[in-house]
Amino acid sequence: MNYKMTTYILGKMFGVEAIIILLPAIVSWIYKEESGYSFLISSAILLFIYICFGRKKPEDTTIYSKDGLIIVSAAWVLWSIFGALPFYISGSIPNYIDAFFETVSGFTATGSTVIEDVSKVPKGINFWRCLTLWIGGMGVLILVMVITSVHDKNSMHLMRAEVPGPELSKLVPKARTTAKILYGMYFALTIIQVVFLLVGGMDLYDSITHAFSTAGTGGFNNRTNSIAFYNSIYIEIVITVFMILFGINFNLYYLFLFKKANNIWKDEEVKAYFIVIIVATICIAMNIFHIYGTVFQSLRYAVFQVASTITTTGFATADFNLWPEFSKCMLLIVGLIGSCAGSTGGGIKVARFLILLKSIRKEIARMLHPKSVSIIKINGKKINEDTIHGVYMYIIAYVFILIISVLIVSLDNFDFATSFSGVLSAINNAGVGISKVGPSGNFSQFSILSKLVLCLDMLIGRLEIFPFLMLLSPNLWRKKF
Amino acid sequence: MNYKMTTYILGKMFGVEAIIILLPAIVSWIYKEESGYSFLISSAILLFIYICFGRKKPEDTTIYSKDGLIIVSAAWVLWSIFGALPFYISGSIPNYIDAFFETVSGFTATGSTVIEDVSKVPKGINFWRCLTLWIGGMGVLILVMVITSVHDKNSMHLMRAEVPGPELSKLVPKARTTAKILYGMYFALTIIQVVFLLVGGMDLYDSITHAFSTAGTGGFNNRTNSIAFYNSIYIEIVITVFMILFGINFNLYYLFLFKKANNIWKDEEVKAYFIVIIVATICIAMNIFHIYGTVFQSLRYAVFQVASTITTTGFATADFNLWPEFSKCMLLIVGLIGSCAGSTGGGIKVARFLILLKSIRKEIARMLHPKSVSIIKINGKKINEDTIHGVYMYIIAYVFILIISVLIVSLDNFDFATSFSGVLSAINNAGVGISKVGPSGNFSQFSILSKLVLCLDMLIGRLEIFPFLMLLSPNLWRKKF
Repeated sequence: MNYKMTTYILGKMFGVEAIIILLPAIVSWIYKEESGYSFLISSAILLFIYICFGRKKPEDTTIYSKDGLIIVSAAWVLWSIFGALPFYISGSIPNYIDAFFETVSGFTATGSTVIEDVSKVPKGINFWRCLTLWIGGMGVLILVMVITSVHDKNSMHLMRAEVPGPELSKLVPKARTTAKILYGMYFALTIIQVVFLLVGGMDLYDSITHAFSTAGTGGFNNRTNSIAFYNSIYIEIVITVFMILFGINFNLYYLFLFKKANNIWKDEEVKAYFIVIIVATICIAMNIFHIYGTVFQSLRYAVFQVASTITTTGFATADFNLWPEFSKCMLLIVGLIGSCAGSTGGGIKVARFLILLKSIRKEIARMLHPKSVSIIKINGKKINEDTIHGVYMYIIAYVFILIISVLIVSLDNFDFATSFSGVLSAINNAGVGISKVGPSGNFSQFSILSKLVLCLDMLIGRLEIFPFLMLLSPNLWRKKF
Repeated sequence: MNYKMTTYILGKMFGVEAIIILLPAIVSWIYKEESGYSFLISSAILLFIYICFGRKKPEDTTIYSKDGLIIVSAAWVLWSIFGALPFYISGSIPNYIDAFFETVSGFTATGSTVIEDVSKVPKGINFWRCLTLWIGGMGVLILVMVITSVHDKNSMHLMRAEVPGPELSKLVPKARTTAKILYGMYFALTIIQVVFLLVGGMDLYDSITHAFSTAGTGGFNNRTNSIAFYNSIYIEIVITVFMILFGINFNLYYLFLFKKANNIWKDEEVKAYFIVIIVATICIAMNIFHIYGTVFQSLRYAVFQVASTITTTGFATADFNLWPEFSKCMLLIVGLIGSCAGSTGGGIKVARFLILLKSIRKEIARMLHPKSVSIIKINGKKINEDTIHGVYMYIIAYVFILIISVLIVSLDNFDFATSFSGVLSAINNAGVGISKVGPSGNFSQFSILSKLVLCLDMLIGRLEIFPFLMLLSPNLWRKKF
């Protein structure tokens, strides 16, 4: 392990955070909010740490695979620890553990909040909440790669841990160039959404914060009843469309834009993603028809909630906690499936579900014809054994983490639906569950222990389990590797 | 596929059911219950079918691996369809789907009931309920193998599908002899329990039915408040000890009795099984201490419920639905783990959990040292790749079935805890969940659709998923295999 290089990269990351934390300070200054000073203090602290660790590049810049995983895990935890400072210093979230929870929820693009009345949060602070979603959605290390010149040779290790999904396809051989392309497209798509929202009559501040929140598929905003506040079909359509767009693998946009490949619609994962959206929307619309009375209204609420849930954004136009159990279960399942690999969305990912379903089909075929050799293909390409094995391990670890977390959270003695869906929404980075953690609820009611478990679950979910599990292994901390 | 041999074996099975269904008729005769005639009618119907199909042995007696799976799946469904007749004919369960549910629940040793007041059920009918648990616990086909002379050469295929757990260790080379040894030990252990219960002051009828129910790890009895009715610490201890004994791999008893191998306590699975029991008991006792006031009472109720749940029996001495959420969650998890492979208990099985935990540990080691070659060992013996792959597929299929079943059952619009724990208790053959399907509830409230889904789940759980999934594959039904 290369300790010097690890501290150097982490140090550099503090420098980047010191800069971006000044953006909400500008917003506070524009709106003349006192709480703006909290960003300046936080920035100064971050700058100090950067100066201590992130200035002198070590001679040996090799990053091993293991270092990459440690850097990523540590980076997310450290960014959250210090990113929580403005909430705490400004007094918007008086308890530091709560502030930390809010920040983890932000960077992991989960969107669970501990704030009971989000409409009272100052604009600068809310801007920071939404900005954390936007940065975390695409990845904090990828951002650092874009801004600073981290040594390129081995930085693909860093990227692998941050881009969600079973397999990483490099767009171009150089990691930094890939990172720049990804952030470029992400930025452009966000700007387009801002324009569309402005056209619909949203003011600039709301347009930007909502676009951040949509792009990161996080779901923070400063309205107590979320998107229902605007009661505008146009805004609902814009947000629905963009949520779905941000749930698609960014590689496909790259291929479409730069390689003129017209195969977005031929991609098996995208097809399955749209099939899930359509089927779930129809099922839920039928199930809630008796509440809304018309086909149009039922579809309107159903499609928004399905899009918000499958992309694990967490916006709401209705309190689906009041819908029948079937609709709620369907939403839990849709959130579990999640969006496409390589998108900003959470959940298990459509690609993994495809691999799992095909594995089961293969297993049944193998029982019928024991000597048959069958391979798993996606988009006509054979998926290699290591990737499949990785998906199995992912699901197994996922189930264990779910079980243990629900058990610990149940100590708070909330009803089973709250504990279960609360943990599920944390691991899936969905941010909204049912019962007490439904769209009208929040996470402030949990104990400190539960909040820390949920923080761990959000990080585990965002970094796809193993980098974090690895940190818990005693082997990692032995001197001699 | 050998159609003739398949029908012949299934026909023979009807003959065996025709005989055993006369046993409760004797009980009805002793207690002079009118409902006894329902067993005679059912027996006559079964005998007629046996005469049609089960008398002439075909020339080609080869059973292929695939035939074995079809025979097992069909046998369990057919036995349940006809085993439901006495409930329906006698009017004890006026609705046939309900009667079918009760029988599936019996043969799969689940122990979920649709009867609202079990204390009013005639003794003969209740005897049949408990007898189905006893037979299903060890396996209906294994029983047929003991009684009739099914061709021995390939009958290991039948056994493999019925004995739960990731691997089948043959006790002796011949399947029929293995079956005889298993049923012999099972019978002996049941008799010993009857004697212990008689000593505790239970009458003969109660002793036999409770021993059946304990041995099959099913949990039917004719007391509305289950074992709490007796309020006897002696009886609780006897039942606790025997539940735990029936949850241990029967192979170990064989090795202990006939091979003088003293390695029950060295077996990794048994060790893990006891560790789970002890840890869960202590955690729950601490969690319910404020309800019962003394350490002794807390431990008394905790250990009984843990033993009843891990072995998926489903007896109760307290309404644990009123315990704190943590205890309820712990019980759900303990029921999910289930008992040892090769026992009569349900759940995922301790052996599978051991393999899964070791796989995750191996995966983390592989991330730290990519070139390390590590194998998974249990009891010092390497587990082969096929077995491990089978365990992965089992868990993945389990999760899919759980999700789809909960979604369908949620159409009944019960709270999430009821739908979720109801389905979980069906797949695990546990028989008791929380909320409306807790110890004081029953399954009569579900719709017909949900009941059929739960029946399928119970069968899928008992036959370890794949034999049943295979039946749903269109490939199976094509003429040319």
